[in-house]
Amino acid sequence: MALMEISVVPLGTGEIGLGEYIAEIISFLKKNDLPHTLTDMGTVLEGEIDQLLTVAKVLHELPFQRNVWRVVTHITIDDRRDKKVHLEDKIKAVTRRLS
Amino acid sequence: MALMEISVVPLGTGEIGLGEYIAEIISFLKKNDLPHTLTDMGTVLEGEIDQLLTVAKVLHELPFQRNVWRVVTHITIDDRRDKKVHLEDKIKAVTRRLS
Amino acid sequence: MALMEISVVPLGTGEIGLGEYIAEIISFLKKNDLPHTLTDMGTVLEGEIDQLLTVAKVLHELPFQRNVWRVVTHITIDDRRDKKVHLEDKIKAVTRRLS
Amino acid sequence: MALMEISVVPLGTGEIGLGEYIAEIISFLKKNDLPHTLTDMGTVLEGEIDQLLTVAKVLHELPFQRNVWRVVTHITIDDRRDKKVHLEDKIKAVTRRLS
Repeated sequence: MALMEISVVPLGTGEIGLGEYIAEIISFLKKNDLPHTLTDMGTVLEGEIDQLLTVAKVLHELPFQRNVWRVVTHITIDDRRDKKVHLEDKIKAVTRRLS
Repeated sequence: MALMEISVVPLGTGEIGLGEYIAEIISFLKKNDLPHTLTDMGTVLEGEIDQLLTVAKVLHELPFQRNVWRVVTHITIDDRRDKKVHLEDKIKAVTRRLS
Repeated sequence: MALMEISVVPLGTGEIGLGEYIAEIISFLKKNDLPHTLTDMGTVLEGEIDQLLTVAKVLHELPFQRNVWRVVTHITIDDRRDKKVHLEDKIKAVTRRLS
Repeated sequence: MALMEISVVPLGTGEIGLGEYIAEIISFLKKNDLPHTLTDMGTVLEGEIDQLLTVAKVLHELPFQRNVWRVVTHITIDDRRDKKVHLEDKIKAVTRRLS
């Protein structure tokens, strides 16, 4: 089971802000009940690798539906097969270690 | 002012877990009163670009002090000069947009 | 049409080297006639987004077949819909600009 | 000794192309005799970690001198202390393995 961080950056919009595009991503994830965490630098999801890449595809496509012609997307997958992993697990484990 | 996400991965440790190394990073940031957010996929910091890269250097060096011989570090910097940016700003702005 | 850079890092192998795993990736791409460029930091492929993510899935799975239990994969997609893009295009364009 | 891949993306330019900005990076590296390889997805440099991060800072600053107000920079550092590493080493090693 894996965690995936994704950030989708549209180019050539002429605007400096990306909030509108990030809101669309979060809106899609909420509508589809996909567990996720919005961070300052991207969005983190949990799931199996196939499902995560399918979602990545959809999120990457979103800006193209709004007259954007170039999108740069960064994806990081942290996949371990020895145990189930969930959002917040790593954060809790590190916090426990430090207390 | 900028945000920086950093993840530091030691190779060749023979262990699957990274918690020990992440705890050391967070411990360093706390001891030095550096504002940060631990996420499931890395650590996010705020500051000016020079300060951020100086901290990145220190965090990248940490595993080498523990008998690690290879480290792969990923850094993403989101730097804007039109306004001050702080941790949580983007998250709040997107949440506001969606409500 | 898009370019994708991918790097697949197995954790917990106890070895510092990754050459064996990279060779397996390149070997797979050659066997399947998938155009690619090996760089010092990853592998770059060209194609449509769906095809690229399908290949990413296969490459990400390779280490798990060799007794690896955790894999961290980084993927960057640069997708533009205004024109066909191919490997080496950007390099040639920049070289032309500088000469 | 380390390898560093860097990609510097200016936002809000209104243009879809980045060639102009990449050319400026390569031009700077050439003028300063810094060994580098331009790939389809970024620029790879070799050096010690301090030197690499100093160069990263300069490259990240370049677009701000051209009326850009937001820059997103991705840096990957692959640092090993068991031997000297140079550009092209990994590519040659994998090619040898496959022949």
